[in-house]
Amino acid sequence: MRASYYHGDRTFKTGPAPMPAPQAGEALLRVRRVGICGTDLHIYQGHLDHRVPKGGIIGHETFAEIAEAPAGSGFAVGDRVVVEPLRVCGECRACRMGASYICYRLQVLGVDAPGGMQEYWAVPAARLLKVPASLTDDHAALMEPLAIATHDVTRAQVKSGDAVVVLGGGPIGCLIALVARHRGARILVSELNPFRIDLLKGMGLEVFRPDPAASGQDLIRAVNEWTGGDGADVAFEVTGNAAAVRLVTDLVRVWGAISVVAIHAEPMLVNLYPMFARELTMHGSRLYAREDWEEAIQLASTGAVPVGPLVSRRIPLEDLQKGMEEALAGGPVMKVLVDLS
Amino acid sequence: MRASYYHGDRTFKTGPAPMPAPQAGEALLRVRRVGICGTDLHIYQGHLDHRVPKGGIIGHETFAEIAEAPAGSGFAVGDRVVVEPLRVCGECRACRMGASYICYRLQVLGVDAPGGMQEYWAVPAARLLKVPASLTDDHAALMEPLAIATHDVTRAQVKSGDAVVVLGGGPIGCLIALVARHRGARILVSELNPFRIDLLKGMGLEVFRPDPAASGQDLIRAVNEWTGGDGADVAFEVTGNAAAVRLVTDLVRVWGAISVVAIHAEPMLVNLYPMFARELTMHGSRLYAREDWEEAIQLASTGAVPVGPLVSRRIPLEDLQKGMEEALAGGPVMKVLVDLS
Repeated sequence: MRASYYHGDRTFKTGPAPMPAPQAGEALLRVRRVGICGTDLHIYQGHLDHRVPKGGIIGHETFAEIAEAPAGSGFAVGDRVVVEPLRVCGECRACRMGASYICYRLQVLGVDAPGGMQEYWAVPAARLLKVPASLTDDHAALMEPLAIATHDVTRAQVKSGDAVVVLGGGPIGCLIALVARHRGARILVSELNPFRIDLLKGMGLEVFRPDPAASGQDLIRAVNEWTGGDGADVAFEVTGNAAAVRLVTDLVRVWGAISVVAIHAEPMLVNLYPMFARELTMHGSRLYAREDWEEAIQLASTGAVPVGPLVSRRIPLEDLQKGMEEALAGGPVMKVLVDLS
Repeated sequence: MRASYYHGDRTFKTGPAPMPAPQAGEALLRVRRVGICGTDLHIYQGHLDHRVPKGGIIGHETFAEIAEAPAGSGFAVGDRVVVEPLRVCGECRACRMGASYICYRLQVLGVDAPGGMQEYWAVPAARLLKVPASLTDDHAALMEPLAIATHDVTRAQVKSGDAVVVLGGGPIGCLIALVARHRGARILVSELNPFRIDLLKGMGLEVFRPDPAASGQDLIRAVNEWTGGDGADVAFEVTGNAAAVRLVTDLVRVWGAISVVAIHAEPMLVNLYPMFARELTMHGSRLYAREDWEEAIQLASTGAVPVGPLVSRRIPLEDLQKGMEEALAGGPVMKVLVDLS
């Protein structure tokens, strides 16, 4: 079997790997698809070298088929599954609070521990979810980012009729917009990339393309007009960009909510005055509970959230490094899947 | 009668004033005490010249006696009252949401409209609350900041057993600490001013004095030790200081809350990484609902929250400008009251 290994210094190399030996409670998976995610791009650029060892195997957006299942696990050979890629301690304050997905000793499979960029992978059966036949292999690989999105929309308490601004129309921003729309909200996505703008519009989403020279003032004005001067009910920060963080508190109505979905490794300038004056709430949104996955599978398999248009292309495992470069270039791409069929 | 007028350029002048003529629904107040607040210091330094006109009368922490009451108002001559110093439109989104105290067209009496720094003052009777005889005149003047504190603690959902960090032990920080303690929380106040540290300790509060050279690392370590490594349940940012904002997201546990009480006129560097990774919530907290005032009066008049030690001294109206300078100097002072008896 083959695996792709991280070598540091913007290098992945595919080579032979030993067949994993499942431990007690683990299933052996035959991996079929693995999505490339923004976190993977951070890994590729070396930002997570303190967590991902040289020789590590990344990949946390995985669709697979069961090759071996532990007895009594409820899974059988051939079952089509997705992987909730978390290892939690079960004992810390977060786990005891029911926030185990942000366990103080959390390990993410594909970051802190080996992930899905290998043909066979041993994973605890408790971390698998079956997907129905109505979900294609490609679409099933999008259940992890869609679970992020269902979690984000739930945590931000988006409700029917809300005016929701999504800053950043990449894969996560797009999925947040689609889930929020399904909940009955009206959506405005702010995005710069022309390919993504076309794709978002093709899915029926309203898109605003800010003029980078306007320092966000055009977006603030647009959101004010769009909401009759009140401001948005909810804004999602999905860009990771300093300019977006700088203006997001100016977009939201009294008592409104800002969800920080993007990863900001460095301290960012935030305009706290509207947060005080309008009593805004800003919260972080990171991973997902089991229910967020179940909702994701239900929304995608019934077609309520159409994930198909997000898949830009499939690449073989050997092309992972090239795929990273293409994703970083910011060209005509949304989601790239590694195909290990 | 006399009033103190703001002349801009760090100047207040006391002089004769016309006796106010109450309009329909207004009571005429004989003002007895007015507290000097952080907002007043901002006004004094010219930061709010876009809201406070030259010749304006400030003061929004007012205790008074009724000199004339409108018929049917429920108030009578001689009633001892405090003033909820807000004028709201009743029609905007905020008002319709029940957030009228952060009305989109809010006017604060003593900022945007004349306030209490005058011997007689006409105020809508609907904005008055009676105080019981068990509350002294000095203590009654503290009901406005105490209503801020009850609002802040309620909005942050502080509950019994919570570990609460208060950054900044000035009047508002001190009152937040006392209200949160009354709700059953354990409190750690971070403060630099030795006079305030002694005063806080004298009220039985635990105080940490950060070493300014440690860039907040000593406070982060102290809070971690104080909470067994989890982080605080709730942190209040009451300093207005960039260094405090920079570290506050490092003080809080998974799913914990940060309340931004201080006014930050400029964008501030916020470490958003823990907000994301621990799914923290940060919210602004500005003014108060009627219920926050009722709770404040109840807590102070029963002695549940001892406000007396906060009163550093009383000054005559003529000394307002001098009082501002003393408060700004950051010396041995907590709350200064203007005495108009």
